[in-house]
Amino acid sequence: MSRTVYVNGEFLPEDKAKISVFDRGFLFADAVYEVFPVLGGGIADADAHLARLGRSLNELQFPEHYTPQEYLPLLKTLVQNNKLSEGLIYIQVTRGVADRDFDFPKNTDPSVVMFTQEKNILESPAAKIGISVVTVPDIRWQRCDIKTVGLLPACLAKAAAKSQGADDAWMFDADGNITEGSSNNAYIISHDGKIITRHLSNSILHGITRVSVLELVNDSDLKLEERPFSIEEAEGALEAFSSSASGFVMPVVSINGKTINDGKPGPNSQKLRQLCIEKAKLSAATAQALRPPRKIKARSA
Amino acid sequence: MSRTVYVNGEFLPEDKAKISVFDRGFLFADAVYEVFPVLGGGIADADAHLARLGRSLNELQFPEHYTPQEYLPLLKTLVQNNKLSEGLIYIQVTRGVADRDFDFPKNTDPSVVMFTQEKNILESPAAKIGISVVTVPDIRWQRCDIKTVGLLPACLAKAAAKSQGADDAWMFDADGNITEGSSNNAYIISHDGKIITRHLSNSILHGITRVSVLELVNDSDLKLEERPFSIEEAEGALEAFSSSASGFVMPVVSINGKTINDGKPGPNSQKLRQLCIEKAKLSAATAQALRPPRKIKARSA
Repeated sequence: MSRTVYVNGEFLPEDKAKISVFDRGFLFADAVYEVFPVLGGGIADADAHLARLGRSLNELQFPEHYTPQEYLPLLKTLVQNNKLSEGLIYIQVTRGVADRDFDFPKNTDPSVVMFTQEKNILESPAAKIGISVVTVPDIRWQRCDIKTVGLLPACLAKAAAKSQGADDAWMFDADGNITEGSSNNAYIISHDGKIITRHLSNSILHGITRVSVLELVNDSDLKLEERPFSIEEAEGALEAFSSSASGFVMPVVSINGKTINDGKPGPNSQKLRQLCIEKAKLSAATAQALRPPRKIKARSA
Repeated sequence: MSRTVYVNGEFLPEDKAKISVFDRGFLFADAVYEVFPVLGGGIADADAHLARLGRSLNELQFPEHYTPQEYLPLLKTLVQNNKLSEGLIYIQVTRGVADRDFDFPKNTDPSVVMFTQEKNILESPAAKIGISVVTVPDIRWQRCDIKTVGLLPACLAKAAAKSQGADDAWMFDADGNITEGSSNNAYIISHDGKIITRHLSNSILHGITRVSVLELVNDSDLKLEERPFSIEEAEGALEAFSSSASGFVMPVVSINGKTINDGKPGPNSQKLRQLCIEKAKLSAATAQALRPPRKIKARSA
């Protein structure tokens, strides 16, 4: 069945969902994005994702007349139009259409695209058995905190992992420390019961699910350490997992071929996954209950 | 007047030139490009640009059934359809359309987009007076030798320069050495008559015009040094210039507010510009004389 896709004020069948070849998202990767989890037809953590979208736009000096909160009714309409119960909403905002020039154009309207993807999140087959990761050099730019569509290095990392028979790649910096996964934050649990994940900086995305995970850890008996950890530390960890908006907590059972926790999802990883999903379900249900969709005027073309 | 734009086998008016929002060039910057100079209606250095396009595609593991040389007749048709005498042709090749997933899709056809831009190259007003540059940190990824559309860092550099009242940005690495300009290679001429430009590596684009410049220098009495040079060396240079397919040799007369060569284009820079343009004109005229356009079958949709 064809999806309904939002493009610049219109809801279109996906084969009609097109943008100009002069769009700066296409020519310069001059665009940012967000991915929202949808559970039971409700959008989880919408405010946090919209706030991060606003930060990304601001860091890149996009025109000010865009208020990410105004996208929320459109996101909800998109979920309804696609009868999406469980999966993702993707939104991309570009600096707009202009004749090709590296300098930022004056007075262009940003382009906005949104689409949905169905995905089995709660009963993810991968989460049940855990995933394998391999480590690859992190060759990305120095502002990985901004969620731009300049994702080719992440795609190369993911494809390299797949070509080695692994499920995902964790990237490491010049010091041999893990930064994050190809599209997720990376965590290990040490044998003395510490959850270790890299501290926030321009080197990693400031994950929305990472915030949830850290809140849950702080409410537990586990100790949290936000610091770089090495490939060797990861390979020898008691447990390992990644977090993302589309996977929540995903247990990692193999790193560079070294088996983690007997090759099965670790108990703490599983518990964190369950708690994290409960939190998101509550957020999604609350959003549905308290904020019914309303019409807003789409931006003029 | 509306341009004719090539999109996946069709020549279209520019307002109809669109690509799917699911194109990986739009979603992941999973795409490469080239810019060809057009002089007197002929395409200069076509073989070198097409060879580099082939290398970019190869480095990114694009499907093998694309032979960049097959684009040449299309490029020529585009020049004719747009009655382009002087300016540029832009070509972008993406990994194609697929539902959003970081891993490379199987069996997708690459998307191909081409368009022209009119530009006063030979009598460039900027070249007559020289340009001003400021230096900014190079925050790009570690494969700048691949000509991908992941150009947001370069756009940010260019926009930062413009916002400071300068014409362009030269980027510097963690050691304080210049890598290259926002969309051009960077050169200085020292007071003892050496032309200094950074050596080839993954840190800079391997410029086609850079090859021409170096050939010309080797035929002259100037000495060539391919090595990193510092911001301070640049600010104190006798002359400075940049090179690109769209600007050939562009004299630089100010770096971070420090005047170079009394604020006028240096004699060697001017001479190199003239020689470089003569070379390109010859290449463009030869291409026109020896390779008349012929029809080729556009790839199936």
